Parts: sequence; C-alpha cells; structure tokens
Amino acid sequence: MPIDPNASIEVTALSWVPLPANGLVKDLRVRWALEELGLDYRVRLLGADRPADYVNDQPFNQVPYFTDGEVHLFESGAILQYLGEKSETLLPRDPQGKYRAIQWTYAALNSVEPFVQNRTLLSGPFAGEEWARLSIPHADQMARLRLTRLADRLGDKQWLEGDRFTIGDLMMVTVMRLAERGKLLDETPNLAAYMERGQARPAFQRALEDQLATYSEHQPEGVAA
Amino acid sequence: MPIDPNASIEVTALSWVPLPANGLVKDLRVRWALEELGLDYRVRLLGADRPADYVNDQPFNQVPYFTDGEVHLFESGAILQYLGEKSETLLPRDPQGKYRAIQWTYAALNSVEPFVQNRTLLSGPFAGEEWARLSIPHADQMARLRLTRLADRLGDKQWLEGDRFTIGDLMMVTVMRLAERGKLLDETPNLAAYMERGQARPAFQRALEDQLATYSEHQPEGVAA
Repeated sequence: MPIDPNASIEVTALSWVPLPANGLVKDLRVRWALEELGLDYRVRLLGADRPADYVNDQPFNQVPYFTDGEVHLFESGAILQYLGEKSETLLPRDPQGKYRAIQWTYAALNSVEPFVQNRTLLSGPFAGEEWARLSIPHADQMARLRLTRLADRLGDKQWLEGDRFTIGDLMMVTVMRLAERGKLLDETPNLAAYMERGQARPAFQRALEDQLATYSEHQPEGVAA
Repeated sequence: MPIDPNASIEVTALSWVPLPANGLVKDLRVRWALEELGLDYRVRLLGADRPADYVNDQPFNQVPYFTDGEVHLFESGAILQYLGEKSETLLPRDPQGKYRAIQWTYAALNSVEPFVQNRTLLSGPFAGEEWARLSIPHADQMARLRLTRLADRLGDKQWLEGDRFTIGDLMMVTVMRLAERGKLLDETPNLAAYMERGQARPAFQRALEDQLATYSEHQPEGVAA
C-alpha cells in the first residue's frame, strides 16, 4: 500500500466530495500512477474551504498539487508525465513511443475531456437549469463526435498504442469514467471495454479505494453518502 | 523565413478559414515555436474537406499534425513539448524549470482554454441560438474565474515563471488571443499586456503573417475576406 505518512512524495486531495464527484476527483490520476510505479506517497487533505494560501501552490485552487521534494507541480497531465519519466513502466523511452504517450495525455485533456465534461455537467450539477436543458443537444453532439473518433482510432486494440499501457491510457481511462458518468459510452462499446480494462488494473483499484476511503472517513453527519 | 518546401519538418494547416477563426487555428502555435527555434518547415495544406485518410494521421480530423521524419505527432501541446526538448530556448533543462513550463502548457490547454473557448463560441459562431444566449451568464462566470486566477498568479511578472519565455507562455498567449476575441480580458489588464508582449515577439509575427498569407491566397471568390 503506497500510502505512507513519511513518504517524500506528497499529493493534495479533498477530504470529502458529494456523491456525483466520487471517484472523479483528479488526484485519482496521480494516485493511480504512483500505484502503477509502486512509489510511496503521503496525502495532504484539503477541505471544501481551502486554506487561503493554497492558491500559492495551485493557482486554480484545485487538486492535485504534487511535490517529491525536488519539484513542485500542479496539473495532473504534467505530474503524470514527470512520474512517467522516472521509469519505463508508464512511458516508453524511444522518442516516438514517448511522444505518442504524451500526445494521448494531451488529447485526453484537450480534445476529449472538455467536451465530455461539458455534456456530463449539463445532466449532472446543472440539471434543472433552463440553459443547461437547452444546451444538451449541441453539447451531446460535440461530445459524441469526439468519442466516436476516439473509438475509431482505438479500434480493437487493447490500449491506445497497442499492447502497452502508458500515461496516455491512464489519463484517457479517467476521462472515459467521466463519459460513463454522463452515460455517453452507449454508442462506443469498445471505449466502454477499454475503460473496464483500465479499471481492472490492481493499481487503479487500490488508488480508487484509497480515495473513497478518505471520503467515507470524512462523511459529514446528516449528508447522504 | 523558416518555410522551406524541402524542410524535413512538415506541419499541416488549413488553406482557408472564415474571418472569425483567422489567427486562431492551432498550427499557429507550432509555426511560432519553429520560428522561435529558427527551424525550417514545410506546410501541408488541407481544405475544409480533409482527405478521407487524414484521420489516420489526426484522429480528430484537426490541424496541426507534425512530422520531422523521426516522429509523427498530433496535439499542439505534445508538438510544442517535443520541439522544446530540441534546445533550451523554449524549455529549461533543470527538472523544476522544465516541468513548470510543461505544467503551464497543460494549464493553458485544460484549466483555461476550454472555459475561454466555450464562452467565446457562445457570442461567436453560436450567437443567435437561444441555448447559447441563455448559457452566457454561467459560461462567462466560469471563464472569468479562470482568467482572474491566472491574472493573480501572473501578477506583474513578464512571463508565467518570471523573465524566461517558455512553451508554457507560447501556449498561454495563444489562449489569451482567444480570450481577447471573446472580449474577456477587460477585467485583467495584466493578461492583456502579457498577450501583447507575446504578440510583439518577431517569431510570433512571422508565424502569424505566414498563416494569414495562406488564407489570403486561398480566399474563395465572392466570400468576404
């Protein structure tokens, strides 16, 4: 179990989030990578009200923020890449292989996630708002177009570049989890299967368990779990 | 002038786009980086109807797609990073400096651009749609929150990490151009000044001129420039 209060790697996480965000908060990505690499880490928990000086670490007041004593970093994509460079486990060493993995990390965060997130939020936290209801057809079309193109590229491969799981897959699987939450994977069964393959990895399961265990521990009284 | 039909580096670009997209198409980022580095490149132009097999290069059917003969890549963030690693000009070599630049590249693409783009499109191509009009207040709030937090972090520094211009600034300045197009920089004058500093760089000006010269050359008859 890589969580160790004396580890030199520290990751920020939230102590509790409401159910719809459970398992989607982005420290999960970093925890998962650390589990894949077998690196110990400690967690710095933040409440819904972050300390006022946290923006000095993370200017957008979000998690995760990462340090290993040598570097201090935010943005889950940058952190995954930094961890990827520590070994060949998650990031190939040849230039083409390395940059294909990096390319998919960026694709997950810029070409897929914004559209999936936009669509998923409209039926989630913003459901009930008139503007959200009317925006669904356009947002749905945009999200499904990106997912269809991604599904076409994945085809029947195990991972985005074939047999080898990289930081690009790790990132993309977390984005597919968001798509699934928004019920957007019904037309792309290969993406649903890809997400399941990612979620079946023991490192993922440990990371998710640890994230959710913290939320259970800090469950506010009188709020449904 | 780094455009050279015999260069080994090839970048895809669009032969023409309507005025609202002028100067915002993402090959500009790669052209700008190549100009900063003084690397020759050739351009492969694509029409509005891409060749059917272009999705084999770029699965989302977008520009830019990059090759230097050694690697083939899409995603402007990944391409900037690959180019950054070729020299110290745009990407520091020490781990903290390097990853701070990479962090800002990801921040531009994931923490800022999606919100700025969403807001800008609502008053741009989607203006006149009821759902777009009703979505503006929420989208405006989201975009301005990200811009305000970015402005707070930039403060009175020249570039995001101080005196040194990196791939993170190059990417962020192009996102600020999109914010400006959406009239979103009125409350954050330091971001407007930051964008102007970026745009004043000779490498930026050459890249933009080359991108726009292609559009002029391929201006369809009977369509306003």
